[in-house]
This record gives sequence, C-alpha cells and structure tokens, in this order.
Amino acid sequence: MNTDLDWLRAPAAKVDLEAREAALGRQAELTKPPGSLGRLEEIAIQLAALQGRAQPALEQVRIVIFAADHGVASAGVSAFPQAVTAQMIANMAAGGAAISVLARQIDAALELVNLGTVAPVLAHPLIRQAVIAASTANLAEEPAMSAAQLAQALAEGAAALQRARAAGVELFIAGEMGIGNTTAATALTCALLGLPASDLVGPGTGLDRGGVARKRKLIEQALALHRDQLADPIEALARLGGFEIAAMAGAYVACAQQRVPMLIDGFISSAAALVASRICPGAADWMLLAHASAEPGHRAMAEALGLRPLLDLGMRLGEGSGAAAAVPLLRLACDLHAQMATFAEAGVAPKDAEPCRIA
Amino acid sequence: MNTDLDWLRAPAAKVDLEAREAALGRQAELTKPPGSLGRLEEIAIQLAALQGRAQPALEQVRIVIFAADHGVASAGVSAFPQAVTAQMIANMAAGGAAISVLARQIDAALELVNLGTVAPVLAHPLIRQAVIAASTANLAEEPAMSAAQLAQALAEGAAALQRARAAGVELFIAGEMGIGNTTAATALTCALLGLPASDLVGPGTGLDRGGVARKRKLIEQALALHRDQLADPIEALARLGGFEIAAMAGAYVACAQQRVPMLIDGFISSAAALVASRICPGAADWMLLAHASAEPGHRAMAEALGLRPLLDLGMRLGEGSGAAAAVPLLRLACDLHAQMATFAEAGVAPKDAEPCRIA
Repeated sequence: MNTDLDWLRAPAAKVDLEAREAALGRQAELTKPPGSLGRLEEIAIQLAALQGRAQPALEQVRIVIFAADHGVASAGVSAFPQAVTAQMIANMAAGGAAISVLARQIDAALELVNLGTVAPVLAHPLIRQAVIAASTANLAEEPAMSAAQLAQALAEGAAALQRARAAGVELFIAGEMGIGNTTAATALTCALLGLPASDLVGPGTGLDRGGVARKRKLIEQALALHRDQLADPIEALARLGGFEIAAMAGAYVACAQQRVPMLIDGFISSAAALVASRICPGAADWMLLAHASAEPGHRAMAEALGLRPLLDLGMRLGEGSGAAAAVPLLRLACDLHAQMATFAEAGVAPKDAEPCRIA
Repeated sequence: MNTDLDWLRAPAAKVDLEAREAALGRQAELTKPPGSLGRLEEIAIQLAALQGRAQPALEQVRIVIFAADHGVASAGVSAFPQAVTAQMIANMAAGGAAISVLARQIDAALELVNLGTVAPVLAHPLIRQAVIAASTANLAEEPAMSAAQLAQALAEGAAALQRARAAGVELFIAGEMGIGNTTAATALTCALLGLPASDLVGPGTGLDRGGVARKRKLIEQALALHRDQLADPIEALARLGGFEIAAMAGAYVACAQQRVPMLIDGFISSAAALVASRICPGAADWMLLAHASAEPGHRAMAEALGLRPLLDLGMRLGEGSGAAAAVPLLRLACDLHAQMATFAEAGVAPKDAEPCRIA
C-alpha cells in the first residue's frame, strides 16, 4: 500500500444532529402547512446538519473543474476529438463555457485544475497547472494510471478542498472536463456495483448506436482485463478511472472528513462520489445530488449512493453545470428557512388551532 | 351572455417562429454537445419565441397573488381555519410568507390583490383592495358566484396584467391564497376534464383521510348539482371556481392575448390555466409549468395542458411559490443562451470536425 494514501483512511465526520433538530423545529413553526415546501424544507434541514448551525447559509460556493485526457479516447469513444479537452479548458478560463456563465451568474468562485491533456493548455490565472501526464493509459489495454499517478491525482483533489476551505467555502462543487471520461466513469461504476457494461453504457456527448456499441465492447474488454484487481475501490480507480475522476474522489473524501457539504453534479461526478463513499464510509452523508443526468447509467449510481437528485432537466454536459444550476434552489431553501415568519410572529392561526368542521 | 366578457373572445397571439428559429440556430453553435443542456436549451428557445427576440431576458418578473375566501370552507375541507386567508395576506404584505421571501430573493415585483375575505384585511401599500364579496357561495349548495361577480373577478385578473405590462413585465406569475381553494380547483378540473372526484381529490394543506373523504363527497355533490351547466368553461368557472381562480384565469387569457409569457405555479394555478386554455385556445402556448405539485390531481392537469413541469420538489404550498422557485433556472437558461461562446468564437472543434476513430 502506498503510504501517500494514508490520509484516505481518516473517517468521515459525523453530521450535527443537534443543529438538525433545531432546524426541524424551526420548519414546524414557519407560516405554511407542515411539509408544504417539500424538498426545500429537507434541504434546509440537511444543510443545517452539515454546516452545524440551525440557520445554514450558502454565500461562499466554490466550483473546481478538474480536467484531464484519457488514453481510451484514441479508441473512438467520444463524438468529439481529444483536442477539445484543452480547448474547453481555455474556453472555461475565457468565460465562454457553460460553467463559466453559470459560475458568474450564481456568484460562485471558479477554479480550473489541469491534470494533463494531450494538447497544450495555455497559462491563465484561473488555471492551476498540475499536470500528471499528457493522458491516462488506455484502460482497455493496461491500468489507466500508476500508483504514483493515482496518489498525485487524489492529493490534487484534497489540495483543492484545502484552498476552498481557506476561502471559507460553504458548499463545494467539483466538475470535470475530459474527452472520453464517460467511458472511464462507466467502467469504474460497473466494477464498483458489479454490473455489466450493457446496464450502464450510454451515448455520452452524443455517440450514435454504433459508437455506443464500440464503447460497450471497450468497457467489457477493460473489465475482463482487470477483473481480478477490482475488489478494492482504490485499485479499481487506478485501473479504470481518470486523473480528474481520482481528483474528484479525493476532494469528496476530504470534504466528508473536514465537514464541507458537497453538491454532486452528474454522471462522472457520481462515479467519483461512489469511489469516495467506498473508500470512506459515510461520505455520502455530506453529499447532495444536484440532478439526474440524461446519461442512462446515472440512475443506478444515484441509487447506490442513496441520493435523490434535485433536478431532472435532461442535462448531460458535465463541467459541474447541473450542480451550478441547482445552487439557486439550495439558496432559496436557506432563505425561506431563515426569513419566513413563524405562526406566532405573524399572528397566523397554526394548523391545530380552531379546527373548522361544521359539516 | 354577459357583454362584460366580450374581451375573453379575442384570440391568443401567435408565437414568433422566426425568433424561435434564430434561437435554435444559436443553441447549435454554442460550445457544448448538441442538446446537452436539456431543458435549459428548450426554455431559452421557447422564451425567444414568446418574447419575439432571439435572445430572451427575464429581468422584469412580476408575481401577483390573488386572495379570496370560499363558501365551501365552512364545510370543513381545509386543515386550517378560514381566518387564515386574511392573516396570510397580511403576512405576505409584511414580508414573512414564503412568497414574500422568494419574491425578494429573486428580485421580482410582488403585488397582492384582495378579492374578498371573511376576516378583514388591513390596508397596506402592497395590497390592492378589490373586494367582490366576503366569500363565494358554497359550491356544493349553489353557484359559487353570480355572473356579475365572475365578470368582476376575470376583469381584475386582466387589470393586474395591464399593470404588469405597464411595469415592463417579461414574465408573469400568478399566485393565490384562499382557504378551501383546492376543493374549488378540484371540482372545476373534474368538470373540465370529465373526471370523477376520486381521480383528482387530495389532501390540500394537509387533510387526513377522513377529511379527504369529506372533501370528495362535497365535490361529488357539487358536480351532481351543477351537472347540466358545466359544458361551457365560463359557466363551470362561475359555479365551481373562486374569485381568485377566476382572476388568475382572466390574467392568463390576457397574457396569451397580449404576448406575455407566463409561468404557471401549481394545483390552483393549473386549474385556472385549464379554464384559460378552454376559453382561449392556444393560451397554453404562452405558458411554462414551473413544477409538479405534490397534490395528486396535478398530473392530470399538466397532461391536459400539454405542459411538462420543470421542477418536482414535492411542493404543495401555492402562493406562486413553486413558480418563484423556478425563476432562477429560467434566468440561467437565458444567461447560458446569451453568454456562452460559440465554437467559432472559442476556437473549439465542433462535433463533426476531425472524427476520431482509430479503433
């Protein structure tokens, strides 16, 4: 076992049940029929438990995009050429990508971490250069990464969380960019859940039927090749994952260890979240799931994590875009919780007062 | 036929297909896999068609809450006493109700229209006093309102839309408050869709099983009493509706006639939207449905309107709260549409360039 991975063994923190009770109590006093705000009530209560305060807040939201290339991309598993990974990092930094627009509009800090791309990535103040290699190896032919590369990627995730904490983060979002990464995420999820590729494989950025069939065969080939080394989630991550998936998993484990609520995005993020919850039992207590991805395998991931998606808008972009889109709802949940009047404050008759049953 | 209702006969406006095409074209050029933003793309395109511009915007959002009491409430169809209608109007005006918080946080204008309550409503600058009567009559025993009352309520809705237009509204939201109004909305929907009460009745603010059974019997009684006068939607509205439901229906018809996009809230709003679309064919083209209410009958309403809800958060509060919660998503859809870079601008290889199929 690589000693660089010792930090992964620290347990997940416990959520604050006292803050949870206080938030529950407050919700019952607000001027509305009990439960009538549905999941907006649940979110406020959950965030109270995670932030350890009866009135949670989400002013400081941070989005970290981990980007990396995949050896398997050369096998034609994406509708886009591999050069797009580096091009999209530049687009994100320049403000033109979906996540750039969303981060700006929701007033979230955005950080980009380049873990290694085939095409060069230009220097830019928003981009942290943390290159591990130009890409992972092709998981259908050999382990995607070495033990040292895996340790480095996991540590980059934890380091991103440290920077986020230093900036006072109240909600952490990880996003990703990497042509070919639905192939890696699907293979990894198959390994973790013991499901065949045919159960989870999907079109990713837009493969046609033939493309999906080719992708499925590659995943089957990878699962067969590595089959005797997939029982340990860290080993499975090294063999089938990607640098960005490992970094996200590392960030998620660190979040759970260090009491930082995280909002999980879509398909790739959920694969990383699954790894994190296998490495660190209880990590999923610190997660909210932003949305149901249009990628068909996402449902099985959400179920395995025990998380219910907040949104279901047919999104399948990645980049943390589904998580960013859900942030305003989370904030409204906090605002309602903090700012609504109680029955007593408003002089409104509560549910059980003066029952009115003439008929 | 009451001549005061002649304005209802003007047809719905046609949406702008040219603006729609332009928006579709722009979406195809933005730096993302085609369709990967799911419904956020569809919303931008639909709003372009409704606002008649390739780049829609939602800065000016207006929420109008119509409040009124219901004669049927004396028959014990709500978990709350009837005095709560007036108390909640005061709470909304004072800033303590859910919709007050939401309107403030999403920077929407909020207007309250008091159409008549059993308990007195205090004067307040935010409250427009437009009292028709202290309450409707009990729909299980007689028509809920007279023809003159109906005309007045419909006109109040249209007048609210005029004020909204004068303020430059880009998206209109109607909300409601009225103890007992799920009973009226359910009865009205049963009449319009030809469904039995048992298909649509639900707990509203939180009735127990016995309460729901009592509510169902009252609705059945009302449907039997008025059965020969329910073919015409305006007549059905007079007999089974409420002042606030009629005002919402009037506002919705006016929106469709005057090219104002509307965001429909939940159960009561959807009943009013159904009436509007029966009075004014094509009105639903101008509607977006914010959310799926937890009230079980809402699904049938959405299907009849041909609208897919954006959110499904188990909300059942009314007040326009579900619509307000969806506004940030609509705005993000507009922001993405307007601000994302195109493939050409960003120097990103589009989907069909350099297909990469070595394998």
